[in-house]
Amino acid sequence: MDANQPELGKQVRAADRAHVFHSWSAQDLIDPLPVAGAEGSYFWDFEGNRYLDFSSQLVNVNIGHQHPKVVAAIQEQAARLCTISPVMANDVRGEAAALVAGHAPDGLEHVLFTNSGAEAVENAIRMARLHTGRVKVLAPYRSYHGATSTAIAATGDPRRIANEAAGHADPHVRHFFGPYLYRSAFNATTEAQECERALAHLEQVITLEGPATIAALIMETVVGGSGLHVPPDGYLAGVRDLCDRHGIVMIADEVMAGFGRTGAWFALDHWNVTPDLITFAKGVNSGYVPLGGVIISGPIFDTFRERPYPGGLTYSGHPLACAAAVATIRAMEDEKTVENAAHIGTDVLAPALRDLKARHQVIGDVRGLGVFWALELVRDPETREPLVPYAAAGAQARPIQQLVSDCRSQGLWILANGNRLHITPPCTVTPEEIAEGLTAIDTALTALN
Amino acid sequence: MDANQPELGKQVRAADRAHVFHSWSAQDLIDPLPVAGAEGSYFWDFEGNRYLDFSSQLVNVNIGHQHPKVVAAIQEQAARLCTISPVMANDVRGEAAALVAGHAPDGLEHVLFTNSGAEAVENAIRMARLHTGRVKVLAPYRSYHGATSTAIAATGDPRRIANEAAGHADPHVRHFFGPYLYRSAFNATTEAQECERALAHLEQVITLEGPATIAALIMETVVGGSGLHVPPDGYLAGVRDLCDRHGIVMIADEVMAGFGRTGAWFALDHWNVTPDLITFAKGVNSGYVPLGGVIISGPIFDTFRERPYPGGLTYSGHPLACAAAVATIRAMEDEKTVENAAHIGTDVLAPALRDLKARHQVIGDVRGLGVFWALELVRDPETREPLVPYAAAGAQARPIQQLVSDCRSQGLWILANGNRLHITPPCTVTPEEIAEGLTAIDTALTALN
Repeated sequence: MDANQPELGKQVRAADRAHVFHSWSAQDLIDPLPVAGAEGSYFWDFEGNRYLDFSSQLVNVNIGHQHPKVVAAIQEQAARLCTISPVMANDVRGEAAALVAGHAPDGLEHVLFTNSGAEAVENAIRMARLHTGRVKVLAPYRSYHGATSTAIAATGDPRRIANEAAGHADPHVRHFFGPYLYRSAFNATTEAQECERALAHLEQVITLEGPATIAALIMETVVGGSGLHVPPDGYLAGVRDLCDRHGIVMIADEVMAGFGRTGAWFALDHWNVTPDLITFAKGVNSGYVPLGGVIISGPIFDTFRERPYPGGLTYSGHPLACAAAVATIRAMEDEKTVENAAHIGTDVLAPALRDLKARHQVIGDVRGLGVFWALELVRDPETREPLVPYAAAGAQARPIQQLVSDCRSQGLWILANGNRLHITPPCTVTPEEIAEGLTAIDTALTALN
Repeated sequence: MDANQPELGKQVRAADRAHVFHSWSAQDLIDPLPVAGAEGSYFWDFEGNRYLDFSSQLVNVNIGHQHPKVVAAIQEQAARLCTISPVMANDVRGEAAALVAGHAPDGLEHVLFTNSGAEAVENAIRMARLHTGRVKVLAPYRSYHGATSTAIAATGDPRRIANEAAGHADPHVRHFFGPYLYRSAFNATTEAQECERALAHLEQVITLEGPATIAALIMETVVGGSGLHVPPDGYLAGVRDLCDRHGIVMIADEVMAGFGRTGAWFALDHWNVTPDLITFAKGVNSGYVPLGGVIISGPIFDTFRERPYPGGLTYSGHPLACAAAVATIRAMEDEKTVENAAHIGTDVLAPALRDLKARHQVIGDVRGLGVFWALELVRDPETREPLVPYAAAGAQARPIQQLVSDCRSQGLWILANGNRLHITPPCTVTPEEIAEGLTAIDTALTALN
């Protein structure tokens, strides 16, 4: 749809306000932007404003907006067969499963498709419980796993709290502290120390909760929206070892980190660790059609060879979603999209963000890899007092919202979470687009001071 | 894709078995049928076999397979804008919400879109808990609400049991008995008596659980896969009254019953009852793209005007899914699809199934309306001993599986659940197709005797 149709934009806004209930929002306190169209790293509204998308929407359009090969695949599949029950076999479903499993570590060969990351997490935890005969689940604080009642319970960030208070959360999840050197829970001063102490802490939690009661440990390989925490070398291997020693199913949540985001097909690839289950969604088909899933190791698959798996969903392995995944994965392979994300991370974003930090005292920490970065903002680099408090809302959150708003007025769409600005452009982003976005952030940070 | 490509069919089957994990199944005990294509009320495999679809897949393709207007709408939307974040406003999202709300009772004006019925149920229950400040949920036995951990806990049928045993179920749901005259839990002998006693039972459950602890009552307006129970006149109004008297949020689950299935836009329309929340999925766009949602009453919407709603999902109001919903609803309006479902139910299926029952002692009961029917099968019409026991599996379930298999070998695709054959063709089905399908069932029942 063309830009510069302000009357149409007004109609879209009016219909939205009259009938659409928005996620995670106080309905009267939002003003959703009517979007007219999108392409590559940009989208635009009905008034001629164009935005560079440093959020990849909700960190899902890894391949960029409206990739022609994925659009064509959806159109072709729509003409062939939009939907078929999960009871059947289907060509694109099988092909998508083979491609997804093909990028996972050896030994994870089967895929249960879902519609979303939340449903993937629900199913992974269900599999772990049935496989082990245990109930409890461990998950880090500062994490996000989705909003259905087991997934939100696994979530360690503020989004869990109102749900737990309302009784809408699985009661069997326990949280532990993951590695986060900038605000170490363990008084560590080096990455190696943080790693060692975080593992010792986790071992204590396992011991004190009772290893024989713990079905699964679920963690984002690289924590995304809840902090952008890249695990120190050795941490994931240490978690794998603890899980092995105690018969705990290790679930790597790659919903946000997977499919190129970190400059690898799976974030796991950076550390060569093999979990028992991998959850995915978002980047698998860039969200062009809702799709998520669980990649399943041999031993867990074996549990359900002759014992019925008590879970499912109407749209498991939806042909349109799977066709989009096949086209997305093949395009990412052919166009070296993952390699581009790695290159942008190492050669463009890392040095540029280091430079930005050197010029702005408000940037306390810069973390990330690939096209998956955060700037953690502080009032004072010495005390590390956050720019806005944890779980800030309303007026408390104003300084960070001001930054977001300043960026938007410069044509940069960026998301904040807590006291962080998240920089998560599509994996197809160019160095020029990165420069354009960072200039806007630079300007906004300068205005803040 | 054309039929008569047996080699391709073998490849599809091989890829499926190598990489696809199937819902609700023991993976080694299934043999998924490779489907090559579909149109209207039929689909076909790669070996030239064509099946009349009396299941509408999983009771979702209400508009039939590959409806050209819906296919075209998906293709056009794919070219325009596949996905955009729920944070934005979007033209088709607003239009779909207006159309969905437009078919709901007055006073339910806002829609939270999800990907699936399970996610719709999760969100409806979360809303009820936050709106009331209460935790417990009531739901009938013999019901299905989805497989995430709150939705599966609300489920009253055998699919809940293994989940509950594994600890993968919301602990705050309590089940009650709904009306089911053929096997009355209340020793009733007439519909009116069943209605009165079922309401008295429900009132007792509410009293004994403690009304002030109950956030929501969720029920399928017409119970679908778990029994095909049409509520007696007066039952839903009685439930509405009990909810009103005790401040309980009434959630009508229309995931399966909605969008034409019962010969009305919502099954609620048959009884003119207005719930507080309606959950939907499936028929809203016939599952051409995954979509579900919650339709929200004014008072519950008001709760979240200034208080943030603590739930959401990346693909809420997905443009491709919403474009398919807009096209589906408009096509159903234009082509009088809902009227056709009503006509088929009243004028074709009702008399034909009564006739079938008269000729087969194994049919103990016939229930349904619109294109939403079940034949309940018994060993003996006097004792009403079920043809297979409740929650039958393996060898116990063989008699009903034999019927399903006999139908399939005659080119009729039909699903069984418990001791019932479910007859749920698309809403677009013709009298000739009904006759074709019932002939196959007749033959299979005759062979059983």
